[in-house]
Amino acid sequence: MKKNRLKRQIDFIVELDKLKHIFRQTPLINGNRYENDAEHSWHVALMTLLLSEYADAKDTNLPCVVRMLLIHDLVEIDAGDTFVYDEEKNRDKSTRENVAAQRIFSILPTDQAREFRSLWEEFEKRESKEAKFAASMDSLEPLLYNYNTKGSSWKEHRIKSSQVLERNRHIGEASSVLWEYVKNLIADSVAKGYLTE
Amino acid sequence: MKKNRLKRQIDFIVELDKLKHIFRQTPLINGNRYENDAEHSWHVALMTLLLSEYADAKDTNLPCVVRMLLIHDLVEIDAGDTFVYDEEKNRDKSTRENVAAQRIFSILPTDQAREFRSLWEEFEKRESKEAKFAASMDSLEPLLYNYNTKGSSWKEHRIKSSQVLERNRHIGEASSVLWEYVKNLIADSVAKGYLTE
Repeated sequence: MKKNRLKRQIDFIVELDKLKHIFRQTPLINGNRYENDAEHSWHVALMTLLLSEYADAKDTNLPCVVRMLLIHDLVEIDAGDTFVYDEEKNRDKSTRENVAAQRIFSILPTDQAREFRSLWEEFEKRESKEAKFAASMDSLEPLLYNYNTKGSSWKEHRIKSSQVLERNRHIGEASSVLWEYVKNLIADSVAKGYLTE
Repeated sequence: MKKNRLKRQIDFIVELDKLKHIFRQTPLINGNRYENDAEHSWHVALMTLLLSEYADAKDTNLPCVVRMLLIHDLVEIDAGDTFVYDEEKNRDKSTRENVAAQRIFSILPTDQAREFRSLWEEFEKRESKEAKFAASMDSLEPLLYNYNTKGSSWKEHRIKSSQVLERNRHIGEASSVLWEYVKNLIADSVAKGYLTE
């Protein structure tokens, strides 16, 4: 029984390898390739440790935010990355990701499958203060990448500043300081020609 | 003042991008490239959530283990990855990494620089129960990769089973269940010809 439990956990750990092959639309700063989901998940989890002081809700459970961010993209192993500005693909994103969650989390022992699934659903709903702060980290990271690569993926996909503002407005629900910072970064990106108005 | 603080934190976040370009000796299971430090850090942090029940010390502070693993390789941005079986390079590893820690952590505001530095030193010393469990995750991951790629990096570097046993013996200080598992995995690797005796 115990042996079977550990086997399922190890199978899941081996399955996680696949996330290193799921690429996002974010080009790395130093390099000529896109970022993958595993690197991204690490980056946003670590950002939480650095920026937690800016969470407006002072009783935000930070270990929970970190756990959420470590697993938030696992469903993309099957469902792939859906670019935030791709309206077409975003239409059936939720259906695709639910099927993926069913397969992937069920590799785990039942109690952990339930725990991970519920953590992922909490992140997706973006209602709890933990999910809101996690979502703000998830969005801030690609903004910093775009700014530091002179708007590379904004230019590639012809994204306008109004779209960036709209898609990132939720950052203000988690942190007024970070939302202020992001609004300035967007304005500065327009001024520098990284982003069109 | 506050603005300068946030600027330093963001500068550090941008600096973190470099860890995605530091490659380890572990080849990914599904792919023809080596694993990088950022992916590895994510993988071991997530493994902690999955395997914490096997920590022999029941009062291990898990959020602390996760924080430790998220930052444990940051010094390699400057110092590079040192292969665990490379005796030559391991001789001056500590000196190289200390210089790196000095530069990298000092990008942060003083209080966070101190916090991260101390967390990294705790990991390196491997004395606290948190550091011991973190180290066991750090070592278990490449073992699973080697096993699932039929001993690829063991074969490449002509590593013997006695070396693998010796280098991973510390896992037993954190978890008797996982150390039992690892000893079986090593024996099985020898039986299957992934590793020479």
